[in-house]
Amino acid sequence: MVKASSKLYAVIGDPIAHSLSPVMQNWMIGQFGLNAVYVAFHIRKPQLEACLQAVRTLDIGGLNVTVPHKEAVLPYMDTKSVDVQLLQAANTIKNCNGQLQAYVTDPYGFTESLGDNRGRFKGARVFLFGAGGAARSVCYALSRLHITRLFIGDVVEDKARELQSLAVNRLNMPDVSLFSPADRDLSALIGAADIIINTTAVGMHPDTDRSVINDFSCINNRHFVYDVIYNPQTTRLLQQAKKQGATVQNGLDMLIYQGLESLRIFSDEQLTLSPMQLSELHKIMNHELGIYE
Amino acid sequence: MVKASSKLYAVIGDPIAHSLSPVMQNWMIGQFGLNAVYVAFHIRKPQLEACLQAVRTLDIGGLNVTVPHKEAVLPYMDTKSVDVQLLQAANTIKNCNGQLQAYVTDPYGFTESLGDNRGRFKGARVFLFGAGGAARSVCYALSRLHITRLFIGDVVEDKARELQSLAVNRLNMPDVSLFSPADRDLSALIGAADIIINTTAVGMHPDTDRSVINDFSCINNRHFVYDVIYNPQTTRLLQQAKKQGATVQNGLDMLIYQGLESLRIFSDEQLTLSPMQLSELHKIMNHELGIYE
Repeated sequence: MVKASSKLYAVIGDPIAHSLSPVMQNWMIGQFGLNAVYVAFHIRKPQLEACLQAVRTLDIGGLNVTVPHKEAVLPYMDTKSVDVQLLQAANTIKNCNGQLQAYVTDPYGFTESLGDNRGRFKGARVFLFGAGGAARSVCYALSRLHITRLFIGDVVEDKARELQSLAVNRLNMPDVSLFSPADRDLSALIGAADIIINTTAVGMHPDTDRSVINDFSCINNRHFVYDVIYNPQTTRLLQQAKKQGATVQNGLDMLIYQGLESLRIFSDEQLTLSPMQLSELHKIMNHELGIYE
Repeated sequence: MVKASSKLYAVIGDPIAHSLSPVMQNWMIGQFGLNAVYVAFHIRKPQLEACLQAVRTLDIGGLNVTVPHKEAVLPYMDTKSVDVQLLQAANTIKNCNGQLQAYVTDPYGFTESLGDNRGRFKGARVFLFGAGGAARSVCYALSRLHITRLFIGDVVEDKARELQSLAVNRLNMPDVSLFSPADRDLSALIGAADIIINTTAVGMHPDTDRSVINDFSCINNRHFVYDVIYNPQTTRLLQQAKKQGATVQNGLDMLIYQGLESLRIFSDEQLTLSPMQLSELHKIMNHELGIYE
């Protein structure tokens, strides 16, 4: 029951109407018995500074930040975690008596989502599609998973090069190459890789017949294929990779674990989800997406 | 379930930690199936203007305003209802695309709370203790209930005189006199009155052994005694008056009906509470107050 003493948390972004965060976070708040409620605010770029001032005025306890504000919030922060300084992006802002503290929980979300598949990354050759915000977070997570080699590909070559530079110079990753997603000889490279990760929006609802890979003959049962997309539950990429015998995973757990970590930061509580809770949360979020198993 | 599309409503005041409005409004929101959630913001006077700016920035759908801001919000309003202009106070602000519209629902709350006792007011002589904000709202309601005579008493005589002036000059009430709450001969006047209303905080928790009337011998079974206090459920005033055979009522329904009317304004929906819902809401609010029947 929301009462006068309940803390308010919110997600800001543009667009925001279809964010799953409120449903997810309010469910977790209920499960953990926290005295809080979580809403969404539709904030456009020109309102961002006023929004952060409003957070202080109304003593809103915490914010999640999504596209397109993850970098733009940084100039208004009072403190930034080491991770935020490295990635130059934040997805979590904690309001401590008007002091805004920036965190980024996306890399944690990725790593935590891997579960038993985390062991696959040690010594692995990883193929990363996309070089945007999600790719940066994944890249940061990869830099701590002891992979051997990273290939980065983006249709915007400059972005790929920029991420390569971050990976090499700031994340100290030893062996980072670029590839072109349009390359006709990609299949051989992919065949020789161990892990394929899609961080682009290719294949996302409603364009569900698209995929960053078109020739799936190079995929086999040694591959682990990860798609940060969670709507649809199984993208064409995952569907086809699965057919080839690969182990596949979508992005729902990454979304859940970055949110859980944010809630820990907001509440200063040690919070963990049991496997049963995680499974229940999947159902609720998929239901919200209009996905019925 | 609160989701990304849910509207946010809030009550602002100082203090606000013990406001019943969030519990009451969230319960009603649930009963009426509205897609909204209602929280409390602790706003001190110097933050009031910034708070109203925050309401615009975050597109908060509606505010309830309580002590000490009911008058202070007026300069920041884009429109004011006729009632607000008359009473120079607002308890409800609707945000229509950044346009802040001021309403006052307290007089409605008082009138609606009377239920079957409303008929008692026609031609009645009414004794009103207190001349503050609540008294102004009650006075406005009384001006439409066709009472014959009104007596106003406040320990601060200037406030009583001010309310008298409002009643006579702006509400066109024909016969408005002042009395002194300390007057030794009050008993005779009270004995000759039909209705006694307390709008002061005298007798409120924790000072439950106090009452605006000390000699109850003048009260009898013709009297209707109304106390705007709802904590305790039965103040000393109501307890003693009941002993003398009077009909008594506390302020819980006034709180509920002003809130219901605010929710109608926020949501643009025709909302009504059934007797069963009202009784359930009493239980919930009294439970929140720590009052168990």
